Amino acid sequence: MKEVHLFYAPGLPECAELPAEEAAHAVRVLRMKAGEALLATDGRGSFYECTLQSASPKSCSLHIDRVIPGEKYWHGEIHLAVAPTKNMDRMEWLAEKATEIGMDGIHFLLCHNSERRVLKTERVEKIVVAATKQSHKAYKPTVAELTPFAAFLQQPGTGAKFIAHCLAAEGELPFLFDLLPAHGDATVLIGPEGDFTPEEVERAQAAGYQPVSLGRSRLRTETAALVAVQLMNLKARIS
Amino acid sequence: MKEVHLFYAPGLPECAELPAEEAAHAVRVLRMKAGEALLATDGRGSFYECTLQSASPKSCSLHIDRVIPGEKYWHGEIHLAVAPTKNMDRMEWLAEKATEIGMDGIHFLLCHNSERRVLKTERVEKIVVAATKQSHKAYKPTVAELTPFAAFLQQPGTGAKFIAHCLAAEGELPFLFDLLPAHGDATVLIGPEGDFTPEEVERAQAAGYQPVSLGRSRLRTETAALVAVQLMNLKARIS
Repeated sequence: MKEVHLFYAPGLPECAELPAEEAAHAVRVLRMKAGEALLATDGRGSFYECTLQSASPKSCSLHIDRVIPGEKYWHGEIHLAVAPTKNMDRMEWLAEKATEIGMDGIHFLLCHNSERRVLKTERVEKIVVAATKQSHKAYKPTVAELTPFAAFLQQPGTGAKFIAHCLAAEGELPFLFDLLPAHGDATVLIGPEGDFTPEEVERAQAAGYQPVSLGRSRLRTETAALVAVQLMNLKARIS
Repeated sequence: MKEVHLFYAPGLPECAELPAEEAAHAVRVLRMKAGEALLATDGRGSFYECTLQSASPKSCSLHIDRVIPGEKYWHGEIHLAVAPTKNMDRMEWLAEKATEIGMDGIHFLLCHNSERRVLKTERVEKIVVAATKQSHKAYKPTVAELTPFAAFLQQPGTGAKFIAHCLAAEGELPFLFDLLPAHGDATVLIGPEGDFTPEEVERAQAAGYQPVSLGRSRLRTETAALVAVQLMNLKARIS
């Protein structure tokens, strides 16, 4: 497949220029010059065929030649809320893979059993941007800051709400895929290495989150989170 | 969930002892002593409740108290054949995640566009064993050596055969999930970063592999491979 480099310019269309990092990449790495054509996305659903007006490593101004609506390959809004693992690498690959597969937002939960109680989202955001560009998507997932579990439950949330946990006896909980709505809108909560506490599950249920299973294999936190995204994306895919 | 350490002893039941590495872990790390109980698997479907007869870091002999058949959470045999990526880390996490989700065998293909043309399977095998233990499975996926594409096609293979590629126009190929048999037996081929060549796709079709799509998101090799395993596992899961 011919690779067309996709630039991320969240300011488009109002602010028709590449962010510093993208400008540096265009000029220093790709050696692009004024007058050359490039493809950019605003990460909110549009691609822009542009011409470089000025090319400096600090800023590249663009002329928008054509706006192309980017297609989302799934219905509705897919949101993942996960308690970050102690090992940050595992969250970073989760962010990359979930972005490739396709989701709308990743949220981080601070739970009672969380081993990681601080999280800098800058790196995750960078990885999500890179994966959005690499997988040629016009929709960049949003990356939310670490939020205490109780506070997250107070947020309106999106569509059908589910909490995946391992506290119930095997086979007792319905399988997420069977309950997901075809229209896509869904949010799934994934707990920390030590899982959610019974109190957290109760609070989530009181807030409208339905307890579900991700199947009978025992999965690590980041694997459970990716499986949840894959199941949401599969149920909501546009054939 | 209470974590019970699971040991891997492929020699069981005939050879009732822990391999050197497992013995060292039991004695040096877990400080286990003769007379203590432990749980082991042969990786071929059985768990063994054992008592340590002798405990030295070099070898631990076991007395089998009880054999418990391990349940496989999916029907049939799930096999993945993937052209390894240049970056070996990506193959290692694929092996770990695919083992957690559940498959029977991972095979490595040497393709025309393969950037990685040598692969040591020792590390992959270690990761697969660790993931099998960590996810408490009695079935350890087999890890096959790197095999030239044409030679792999000559092998009998397992169940329904599919080749996922991106050479066709979008929407032209059927979606893997729609074609997977409910009985589970399936093998999916995933190409290298540069994808399969048209000739390779033709040869695969001649060998009975049906071209499929994994959905419309553009996926990296290792992501495509994990999505294929997840789709096979989902279709073959035992409810």
